[in-house]
Amino acid sequence: MHEKIEAMIKGNRTEELREFVDGFHPSVAVEIFESLSSELTASVLRMLDPHKGAELFSFLPEEKQDALAREMPEANLVKLITYLSHDERVDLLARLPDTTKEVILDKLANEEERDIRKLYGYDEGTIGALMTSDFASLSPGMTASEAIAHLREKAHDLETIYYGYVLDDESRPAGVVSLKDLIVSPPDSKVEDFMTRHLITVHTRDDDEKLVQVLGRSDLIALPVIDRQGKMVGIVTHDDIADVAVEESTEDFHRLGATGALPITNIRQANAWQLVSKRIPWLLILVGVNVFSGMGIAYHEDTLTAMISLAFFLPLLIDSGGNAGSQASTLMVRALAIGDVRTRDWLYFLRKEIAVSLIIGLLMGAAVAVVATFRSPEIIAIVSLTMLSTVLVGSLIGTLLPFILTKLKFDPANASAPLITSICDISGVLIYFSIAAWMLGLGPEPPVCETCGQILSE
Amino acid sequence: MHEKIEAMIKGNRTEELREFVDGFHPSVAVEIFESLSSELTASVLRMLDPHKGAELFSFLPEEKQDALAREMPEANLVKLITYLSHDERVDLLARLPDTTKEVILDKLANEEERDIRKLYGYDEGTIGALMTSDFASLSPGMTASEAIAHLREKAHDLETIYYGYVLDDESRPAGVVSLKDLIVSPPDSKVEDFMTRHLITVHTRDDDEKLVQVLGRSDLIALPVIDRQGKMVGIVTHDDIADVAVEESTEDFHRLGATGALPITNIRQANAWQLVSKRIPWLLILVGVNVFSGMGIAYHEDTLTAMISLAFFLPLLIDSGGNAGSQASTLMVRALAIGDVRTRDWLYFLRKEIAVSLIIGLLMGAAVAVVATFRSPEIIAIVSLTMLSTVLVGSLIGTLLPFILTKLKFDPANASAPLITSICDISGVLIYFSIAAWMLGLGPEPPVCETCGQILSE
Repeated sequence: MHEKIEAMIKGNRTEELREFVDGFHPSVAVEIFESLSSELTASVLRMLDPHKGAELFSFLPEEKQDALAREMPEANLVKLITYLSHDERVDLLARLPDTTKEVILDKLANEEERDIRKLYGYDEGTIGALMTSDFASLSPGMTASEAIAHLREKAHDLETIYYGYVLDDESRPAGVVSLKDLIVSPPDSKVEDFMTRHLITVHTRDDDEKLVQVLGRSDLIALPVIDRQGKMVGIVTHDDIADVAVEESTEDFHRLGATGALPITNIRQANAWQLVSKRIPWLLILVGVNVFSGMGIAYHEDTLTAMISLAFFLPLLIDSGGNAGSQASTLMVRALAIGDVRTRDWLYFLRKEIAVSLIIGLLMGAAVAVVATFRSPEIIAIVSLTMLSTVLVGSLIGTLLPFILTKLKFDPANASAPLITSICDISGVLIYFSIAAWMLGLGPEPPVCETCGQILSE
Repeated sequence: MHEKIEAMIKGNRTEELREFVDGFHPSVAVEIFESLSSELTASVLRMLDPHKGAELFSFLPEEKQDALAREMPEANLVKLITYLSHDERVDLLARLPDTTKEVILDKLANEEERDIRKLYGYDEGTIGALMTSDFASLSPGMTASEAIAHLREKAHDLETIYYGYVLDDESRPAGVVSLKDLIVSPPDSKVEDFMTRHLITVHTRDDDEKLVQVLGRSDLIALPVIDRQGKMVGIVTHDDIADVAVEESTEDFHRLGATGALPITNIRQANAWQLVSKRIPWLLILVGVNVFSGMGIAYHEDTLTAMISLAFFLPLLIDSGGNAGSQASTLMVRALAIGDVRTRDWLYFLRKEIAVSLIIGLLMGAAVAVVATFRSPEIIAIVSLTMLSTVLVGSLIGTLLPFILTKLKFDPANASAPLITSICDISGVLIYFSIAAWMLGLGPEPPVCETCGQILSE
């Protein structure tokens, strides 16, 4: 395949190359080119029809796009940018060095430059930064066949011709017709008579997460985007959903793993220092939290010294509370993120969790009793009761913390397993040694040396 | 709005109701109906054109669909199922009681029944279970205008008319044209002359996860699905991506939270017992793992008794290893899930992690040294060195475990924070007390009572 393409390029067999490329979907075609050098890829793009070349370019991985853009003669880059879809070209320019960017912008037609600068102004993570401004607009008075003719004529310059938007005098969206509607309607029926008038819209400043919920659930191919004045300024399309869904989930995953949700979602590209600065803040915070567990142990040092066999069960008991809590928080965080659960549902889930964690606590208490039978039968009651209590407390902390964080305007995904574990450790230590001290009747008296009977100093 | 609709229904003002409903996208229209009783909703569906009624029905939440289907006269249900899209009706039938299902299937035309039984046979979680069989097929010899006429005629019965697939004599996909291609091509050009010949296809038995990667990255609206013999049997469409992406991530979230990835992804619908059985297996496994930490402590009991102030730092040190490990495993699990990292990359990431965790370990060692300065200056060296070691070991375990699980054909997401924490606890305990015993020169001699100087028994 590789050699076939090289031969076509070197032989300057333009027609043959174009036909060859047309046989593949662009996402497949670029995979075939992957093994080609930047130079040969640039030749392929030059030999193709400029629309097709720009389409192909947009399917290349970002690093390859950047490499090509840097090596390309300025005039070719300007031409490429003219043909790229409006969202793609903004993304590409944003990645180029500032000086190159300004040179290119200067060489573009005024209208194109304005459009790019406008799209460029939206904050990362908003719908505005995702949308593209090359959508199809129709007049309400057009007939179906006129509308189809209009879409055909503009097809090459539009992101999609499957939806045509009808705007009113103030550029507000007044209706939408799909190409399907146009095809099945009588050719001379007017667009305004069969358009869908009540549009589902999103705003430029909406969080891009909204796309997954709104566009994903609507089964639509695109949604109109309106600005503060209610003017329609672009569309977001179905192919952005997968990217956004994956990216949003990745951020939540990283938060739940107690790594900050820094803008590094691709860990392959992150260097060591970026990874350290992504991970160290939470680790240090957790050290702070863990100091309290240490203080709990220190406070009950006498109990531990008096019955050192308690130490055997320490990791098991405090971890179990943390594990049950991590389970509960993970379930809640995810359900809140995808909208299955809302903040106002907290009481319902708290009640449910009490039932669930009671059952789990009893089962876990039985399990640890079995372990204690073999190990230290004298403390079966202590460890079973502690297990029940820590699982209960851990689960309730895990259930409530995501709601509390949401209420305080933090992302609930910050209720990470490590944070829950550390918090549950504190309560676990206190519960364990309090129960032990109470059951062993240790209370306030200091422990004595088992051998000599004297009071032990620390 | 509510009363307006009620009046239209009760007044049997069919035309007015149809026009009203047509003004909204079906996903919005069903929201308006949400407050209506099942009975009134059934009336609305009856009054609409059957295609529109079926479309609207498919946008209702599942519970409402089920309620309506149960209450509907049999003849109406049969009619509704005839008009529903092929994937929707299979899903609906699968949720009905077996007896109802068989009655309905018997009343359907033979062809419809065969189609349903076939789609019904694919395993949950495969592309086969997601696809729909109502796709558009074209003949290679059709002209563009004939093809458009064909799509127009079939529009109501097809999931999408935006792609027409050309099949060969053995039903294998030979090419595809989009409605856009058809519109922009000269009306009398032949489909076979401008169709894309090399199709991106998926198989009925592929994991539905593949949809996100393949369809999501292609920007296509639909992909053809082929069976074992290479025959085209259906399409999967863009609107399934969001659902699959969200569901797959949810499964991974639940695994990472150490709750089994049982088929319960909606925790609102899960009852207490389902939640318990989803959570208890991992909790019990982790108890088993934690017993080893306990054994580690018991083995070093003498060291702990001799220097009880070591207990203060125990949760802090072993948790820090677990936390660093959880971070590393979360980053890896997610990167493996979205294809940023592949199994063969393990050595690259292990090397990177050694550098990252060394830096983190040194910083954390410094942090714990500060705490020790105030608390127990005599063990600064022990706790700092332990911190460095546990962070290093934890991070490496967290990095490697997802790769090992993948290699063993488990889902890497099973490398959950609780599992990593528990494993790191074991290594943390061993590292801590070994370093302490070594630095304090405790070695094999038993500790003595500080007060009386006699050897302490356990």
